[in-house]
Amino acid sequence: MTAGEYGDYRRIVRDSLASVPSLAPEWRARAMSRLNGLTKPLGSLGRLEEIAARLVAIGEEERLQCSNKVIFTLAADHGVTEEGVSAYPKAVTRQMVLNFLDGGAAINVLSRHCGIEVVVVDIGVDGEVGDVAGLVRAKVRCGTRNIAREPAMSDAELHSALGIGLDLAALAEKQGRTLIGTGEMGIGNTTSASAITAVLTGRPAAEVTGRGTGLDEVGLKRKVEVVKRALAANRPDPSDPLDVLRKVGGLEIAGLTGLIMGAASRRIPVVIDGFISTAAAAVACGLQPKIRQFLFAGHQSSEPGHAALLDFIGEAPLLDLEMRLGEGTGAALAMAIIEGAAKLFNEMATFSSAGVSGTLA
Amino acid sequence: MTAGEYGDYRRIVRDSLASVPSLAPEWRARAMSRLNGLTKPLGSLGRLEEIAARLVAIGEEERLQCSNKVIFTLAADHGVTEEGVSAYPKAVTRQMVLNFLDGGAAINVLSRHCGIEVVVVDIGVDGEVGDVAGLVRAKVRCGTRNIAREPAMSDAELHSALGIGLDLAALAEKQGRTLIGTGEMGIGNTTSASAITAVLTGRPAAEVTGRGTGLDEVGLKRKVEVVKRALAANRPDPSDPLDVLRKVGGLEIAGLTGLIMGAASRRIPVVIDGFISTAAAAVACGLQPKIRQFLFAGHQSSEPGHAALLDFIGEAPLLDLEMRLGEGTGAALAMAIIEGAAKLFNEMATFSSAGVSGTLA
Repeated sequence: MTAGEYGDYRRIVRDSLASVPSLAPEWRARAMSRLNGLTKPLGSLGRLEEIAARLVAIGEEERLQCSNKVIFTLAADHGVTEEGVSAYPKAVTRQMVLNFLDGGAAINVLSRHCGIEVVVVDIGVDGEVGDVAGLVRAKVRCGTRNIAREPAMSDAELHSALGIGLDLAALAEKQGRTLIGTGEMGIGNTTSASAITAVLTGRPAAEVTGRGTGLDEVGLKRKVEVVKRALAANRPDPSDPLDVLRKVGGLEIAGLTGLIMGAASRRIPVVIDGFISTAAAAVACGLQPKIRQFLFAGHQSSEPGHAALLDFIGEAPLLDLEMRLGEGTGAALAMAIIEGAAKLFNEMATFSSAGVSGTLA
Repeated sequence: MTAGEYGDYRRIVRDSLASVPSLAPEWRARAMSRLNGLTKPLGSLGRLEEIAARLVAIGEEERLQCSNKVIFTLAADHGVTEEGVSAYPKAVTRQMVLNFLDGGAAINVLSRHCGIEVVVVDIGVDGEVGDVAGLVRAKVRCGTRNIAREPAMSDAELHSALGIGLDLAALAEKQGRTLIGTGEMGIGNTTSASAITAVLTGRPAAEVTGRGTGLDEVGLKRKVEVVKRALAANRPDPSDPLDVLRKVGGLEIAGLTGLIMGAASRRIPVVIDGFISTAAAAVACGLQPKIRQFLFAGHQSSEPGHAALLDFIGEAPLLDLEMRLGEGTGAALAMAIIEGAAKLFNEMATFSSAGVSGTLA
């Protein structure tokens, strides 16, 4: 990354935030009018109708296109793992990236099941992943610095990571993606997400810090202390989401923030996965509240900080299956639900076309 | 239906209830052992892991088969519609059956989306549906009698309807179905389901009666009174689920009860749709509590009686999307989730096969 490129990304980030559109109420009304004429009692498809109406308002088209689906799974390491905040060694980030590329991880299985392409991005894995087909190589740095002692990233690194996310959104548009899911892998990243959550929502660290991949009681206590130390050492400014992201975030979280910003500015709906992805979404919405119109919350993770973040971005989760895996797994299943809502909107018969009587009233 | 056939069904129903197996804990333990070795933190797939473990215990096989999926949508009319309990005219039952056969209803769209075959059964539509391809013709009677004044069915009619459900389960086994969803269509059938719910759960009619297809305040009040009159006129015996089903049930509900009984006795897992389907499941579980081991609750309907019924059968819903359409629509989406859980179990890499490090502990 050269200084020139860095300056460029700063401008692109600003432009991207400025270009997020507002949804036109007329398109929503048109969608509701069609939904009300389909062969079902008024409103009886519940949240599926809300989803379809929002997709119409996002896409501004008479019929929905929703089958070209992609999940971007961004992987990065976290210097804070040296504080003993995870049940798994740091090496697992790299090992899981190889597992993703080999098709053996949960996100691969669920994406095949739901007809979603997975794009795996090395945005900050510590160590060389190797020359494996399918990997997007975009390493900003071999993991963040240890947030318990210093800022996770430099200003230049933050902008690089955001820029990579913006580039992924541009790629998605070029490939005609109709729905984007967010995913991540990074041993230690729930610590970062907890720190971001504590700052943005103003809640105490102990309330928004959980067991991650499976810490015991002692480990959880240590992790809460590490989050507190990260906040004390860095003093992130709650009114400046980029300051929060740079100081206590992660490279994959910053990348997802850029992806979400870019997708919203290009009118591509985004399905947010779990705790880590929602931390990225919260930063994006903090920078530009209009972004939330383009987001669907895939699921309710069992990580304790997740509900606070969903509340912060103002989205109710579509699924609650007590999952806490990340990778994009919750988003994948939710994308199948959303595609179903789109197909209902497109394909159902109307009362008049099917010769079905309306209400007695 | 001859007297001979009727006597036969009575015996078949009894045999079917007696032959429901218990799940072997060893198979569940084997499933958990595999799940714990897959490349994810222990338990991090939440309810998807529980689903997979139960499917293994049901199927008693090392790997799951879950892609040959069917939804049986049973249609029947209800004499109680003459009391003005529905926002739609009775004719809509028949019109919607034609819509199902034409592929234009919500259940068709969602089933195509999720790779499920829909089998439409006329078990009691009032009027001739016509010679349309794909319809299973098994009409017991042109709708039930008006439960506000007399029992819905005769003993012979009840046993015919149960027998048809048992036959559908036999057909499903013959066709190698690995997962069955329940669906229904019948203007007036939420009134029946509310009456069943009130008797089986002991709750007041007003608590378990809802707006169905969209009654207004006055209509809802009238419907509650009709449910109360049905209970007063018939005095169904809460300790005798078949008595409840015969007196205040519906032909499609009885058919679904038979289907659920037959599927459980054949070790085929069943996904229950919404309020009406769960009323059928509650009757089946009342007759044979072991049946609940084979049931998955697809979703939480927004009909107020549904939560009480789910509580009665002891199953937590997989989805909560504020749907209240029936047809099998909630089951369809849940079946996609369940198939996803099965594929995770079958296809994910293990820590050793993928060379991923285990926990630090």
